[in-house]
Amino acid sequence: MRFASTTTSDGVCEQDFTLDDIPGVLWFPAGTAGPRPLVLLGHGGGGHKRAPGVLARARGLTAGCGFAAAAIDMPGFGDRPKTAEDERFVAEIRARRAAGEPVIGQVLRYNVALAARAVPEWRSVLDALLDAGVTGGPVGYWGVSLGTAIGLPLVAADPRIGAAVFGCLGHETLTEAAAQVTVPVEFLLQWDDTMVPRESGLALFGALASPQKSLHANSGDHLAVPRFEIDSAERFFLRHLTAG
Amino acid sequence: MRFASTTTSDGVCEQDFTLDDIPGVLWFPAGTAGPRPLVLLGHGGGGHKRAPGVLARARGLTAGCGFAAAAIDMPGFGDRPKTAEDERFVAEIRARRAAGEPVIGQVLRYNVALAARAVPEWRSVLDALLDAGVTGGPVGYWGVSLGTAIGLPLVAADPRIGAAVFGCLGHETLTEAAAQVTVPVEFLLQWDDTMVPRESGLALFGALASPQKSLHANSGDHLAVPRFEIDSAERFFLRHLTAG
Repeated sequence: MRFASTTTSDGVCEQDFTLDDIPGVLWFPAGTAGPRPLVLLGHGGGGHKRAPGVLARARGLTAGCGFAAAAIDMPGFGDRPKTAEDERFVAEIRARRAAGEPVIGQVLRYNVALAARAVPEWRSVLDALLDAGVTGGPVGYWGVSLGTAIGLPLVAADPRIGAAVFGCLGHETLTEAAAQVTVPVEFLLQWDDTMVPRESGLALFGALASPQKSLHANSGDHLAVPRFEIDSAERFFLRHLTAG
Repeated sequence: MRFASTTTSDGVCEQDFTLDDIPGVLWFPAGTAGPRPLVLLGHGGGGHKRAPGVLARARGLTAGCGFAAAAIDMPGFGDRPKTAEDERFVAEIRARRAAGEPVIGQVLRYNVALAARAVPEWRSVLDALLDAGVTGGPVGYWGVSLGTAIGLPLVAADPRIGAAVFGCLGHETLTEAAAQVTVPVEFLLQWDDTMVPRESGLALFGALASPQKSLHANSGDHLAVPRFEIDSAERFFLRHLTAG
């Protein structure tokens, strides 16, 4: 893992890194020393490692909670080239949207294919961040929509991740991974989501094996997760990733 | 409305009051002057105006948020005598519990009868608290289980109440009131509730007409609402009852 130089703004240090061909960003609070908890931030579909929602969460988790946070571009997003398969997916989604047809089936099928590539990448990045002494643990994961399609199998597979925020997704292809997740989960659901059927989100929350799980369902469409859920996620990670 | 003398403990002033035959308690932060927001606290079945859950919420809302809070004993609870009908209900519930039969049907039928008595009482108490200058508004309502059976028709009927926390209940008898509630609502649901069927709670949340509504579903049985939901309710009332 190669780290670029650190820039500091408003009390938050930011450092680009690359591992093989995976570009990422690490954030941590200025003027403090590790070890500290780390939260992995998974961006949504169409997003990237510096999408506004990722940046807002990184800022709160570092400046607000004293944690480190890290994000990477998923395959085909941000600074990463799209494969022929990625391009076919984008064209198919665009065509269906233009025709007014539902896209959730295509999105989910593509997300499953992406997760098969992204889960090993996230695990290698976590290995390298631990080796670099960025964190001594514990580790959390935050990601909704595409961030959940990738995060659920990641958290199911990696015992180092001890708490997760998921949501804005639901599908039977994720049920198997959900049944292997036993860490505390806060699960977001948009009650008026026109892309993800409400029942499928409720079913995915129900399928989580976690003894401690909370569903936060808010009125509004897929992208309208209220801002106060950022604060709620911070308190969730403070409860589960710190001794206090 | 007659007020008893004020006692102060840990920065919170507490004052008993009576309105006709309704006994109540008022809490407000020591050392500050009104007007301030007021939250009405409705106790659950088997509880009373000083039940532990009511006291914990009163303390947070006063010492934590700078609000006033008020609770009254519902008819037949706390310091109030039980009618022959109340006694029949208690005996019937006890017999069904002893026989291992579900009690939710009886509880809901009784709650509806209680609400017909309690809603006008709450409105008179609010009139008197406003007359006494306890608050200049705005006003919130918190109450789950029995507190929702009474609070839903109260909030539907009284336009002075501008935000409410409900939950741990669901039934078609409440759907009509829910469809008249348009203020912001935070709705609690216990995912593993053995008394209130999950689907009925989800349906009641769905029936609320409020443009801003949030469902918080947590793992655990009817009485296991997590402690962090007290903090969440405080932040909810701070968002909706204060300008900041």
